[in-house]
Amino acid sequence: MERNAVAIAGVGETEYSRDSGRSELRLALEAIQAALNDAGIAPADVDGLMRWSVDTSAENTIASNLGVRDLSFFGEVNAAGNVGATLVAHAAAAIESGLADVVVIYRGVNGRSGRRYGRGDVTGQGGRGGGALTEPYGLLTPQHSLAMQTRRRMHEDGVTSRQFGMVAVTQRRHANLNPRAMFYDQPLTLEDHQNSRFVVDPLHLYDCCLETDGGGALVLTSVERARARGGPVGAIRSAGQAGTGEGSNLARLGARVFRDAGIAPADVDVVQVYDHFSPFVIFALEGYGFVPEGEGGGMAWEGGSLPVNTSGGHLSEAYMQGMNHLIEGVRQARGESTCQVADAEFSFVDTGIGTGAVVLQRVG
Amino acid sequence: MERNAVAIAGVGETEYSRDSGRSELRLALEAIQAALNDAGIAPADVDGLMRWSVDTSAENTIASNLGVRDLSFFGEVNAAGNVGATLVAHAAAAIESGLADVVVIYRGVNGRSGRRYGRGDVTGQGGRGGGALTEPYGLLTPQHSLAMQTRRRMHEDGVTSRQFGMVAVTQRRHANLNPRAMFYDQPLTLEDHQNSRFVVDPLHLYDCCLETDGGGALVLTSVERARARGGPVGAIRSAGQAGTGEGSNLARLGARVFRDAGIAPADVDVVQVYDHFSPFVIFALEGYGFVPEGEGGGMAWEGGSLPVNTSGGHLSEAYMQGMNHLIEGVRQARGESTCQVADAEFSFVDTGIGTGAVVLQRVG
Repeated sequence: MERNAVAIAGVGETEYSRDSGRSELRLALEAIQAALNDAGIAPADVDGLMRWSVDTSAENTIASNLGVRDLSFFGEVNAAGNVGATLVAHAAAAIESGLADVVVIYRGVNGRSGRRYGRGDVTGQGGRGGGALTEPYGLLTPQHSLAMQTRRRMHEDGVTSRQFGMVAVTQRRHANLNPRAMFYDQPLTLEDHQNSRFVVDPLHLYDCCLETDGGGALVLTSVERARARGGPVGAIRSAGQAGTGEGSNLARLGARVFRDAGIAPADVDVVQVYDHFSPFVIFALEGYGFVPEGEGGGMAWEGGSLPVNTSGGHLSEAYMQGMNHLIEGVRQARGESTCQVADAEFSFVDTGIGTGAVVLQRVG
Repeated sequence: MERNAVAIAGVGETEYSRDSGRSELRLALEAIQAALNDAGIAPADVDGLMRWSVDTSAENTIASNLGVRDLSFFGEVNAAGNVGATLVAHAAAAIESGLADVVVIYRGVNGRSGRRYGRGDVTGQGGRGGGALTEPYGLLTPQHSLAMQTRRRMHEDGVTSRQFGMVAVTQRRHANLNPRAMFYDQPLTLEDHQNSRFVVDPLHLYDCCLETDGGGALVLTSVERARARGGPVGAIRSAGQAGTGEGSNLARLGARVFRDAGIAPADVDVVQVYDHFSPFVIFALEGYGFVPEGEGGGMAWEGGSLPVNTSGGHLSEAYMQGMNHLIEGVRQARGESTCQVADAEFSFVDTGIGTGAVVLQRVG
């Protein structure tokens, strides 16, 4: 992919809540309208749509509600909820190849008042998670299996629950600066974290992501067209996806997006990583090479040099499964975050621990 | 998309049957191996995978069974079963943009012995088909609603059941040349067609597609790499997708793929179009401009100059929802069909009445 040819030209979201009081379709449409307003692009100019495959509002339904004149590109990636950055990669490729000029990536989910992700479904069907082999042993939800992965890393690397707590406390402080965040008004101390109940040992309540109703949207188009908005533009320096292969997805993906971007992790000014559970922030930072392996737990969260999940993330802003991380990554590149990193040039966004990642660059 | 930069370098399928006796995963893997053998590419070199969203074998599952070393691109298009050519467009864009070098598009379905598409599900959910509004009136399956569309066209255009029968008879004659076809050994006359029972009036039994167990796969890579196979290559001259917009998807898609290809419908030597029901072959030929509107029914099927569905198609080869049309389109471009059109240069494939289309060109 050509560097900085395509931009995320507009971002938008609805309010985040526990009960939106309206349909997922409406939430998606409201967020799309906000993102199009931000980009200064009319709904009729949209010719591409992409969505999370787990969502309920099909592209053709969005197109007819939005007034799209000629939908020439749409698609999904089916890998649970952590697909946001992969959609950015697909959409950028489509724009680069001329399949579409303006691609909107959208979500609208009643993740708290409607279908709740954290509830265990006994499928007996196997599939990606191998449910037929794990469900009889009580591994029904992400928190069940990720608790076991966390416990193993605690054993191997010596990472501790108090270190996970520092992730949660740091992100909460970011959320306390962000009026959009569901935990905007609620501070959190390390003691609060340590005293909170276990959801699944060793995961405390405040190690776990929120459940959220809301919508979010991104508008992708050429950097040239994005410049019409005025002000800095969040250009896509590189974007990539990873699935099954040899070794960890995360290491392969990290190597690829930094190679394609022509920069090193140390060049990145601000990072958003997928935080369904706080330990995985540490594991992702290590996996991508932002900190050496085994040293993520001990990194300096207070006053450290690597700002992470600056909107509050899934733990304290909203659980939009990477959509809010992408929005925040763009705001950082444009200098518009409520927890702005001064002179941020390179803004990195992971939306699923090795599933997909984007390097954004501020361009004038 | 650059013309003739990417090719369908390999094609493959399993046998087509009413009862495969093995899993959909296995069918997909067998077809993929056949297509990779055809292309002369090793499984470990595959780095992209795409599939019909209605299928059951996830890309990561295929990757681990196939021995993929680094899956860097995968995705789907969710628009019922008629998405084959749209996947070709997405995969070609991914290759052109450097997201992957070798993308395999695959299917494995027990469409007769397993889940049968033609069975009506009462969902009450609405969604794409607006089920909540139509199911109470008995419109449960594609044949129910498409029978009504067909009746309207009979009324408006004067197209007749005997003309639909000529489509079925012509495609059966093609199937009688194709040992892979489920109806290879069974001839069909116009009288057989007219005397067959109604499935849904005005659709006779022989107006309707087969139900099939089987697998199919396509291997996409650069034209340069495809040339290593030796012999003519089926290069992608253009490929496109269409969804909701103003006017018919089919007219917008046709205009786009012919514009991008820089050719006219009259330049096309051989055509595959989606034939879930025989009337829609006529409607598609008109919609894409291969014959004037209203004249498709009266076109000369016997001895005419436009060879259509030369493998037997969904009516007489297999119901692989466009996968077999794409395979046949490539074979025509390479001069390898069992019903080969002499000196075919441009081979057109529609896989869903305006959802997606590909123009293939034979290159040396």
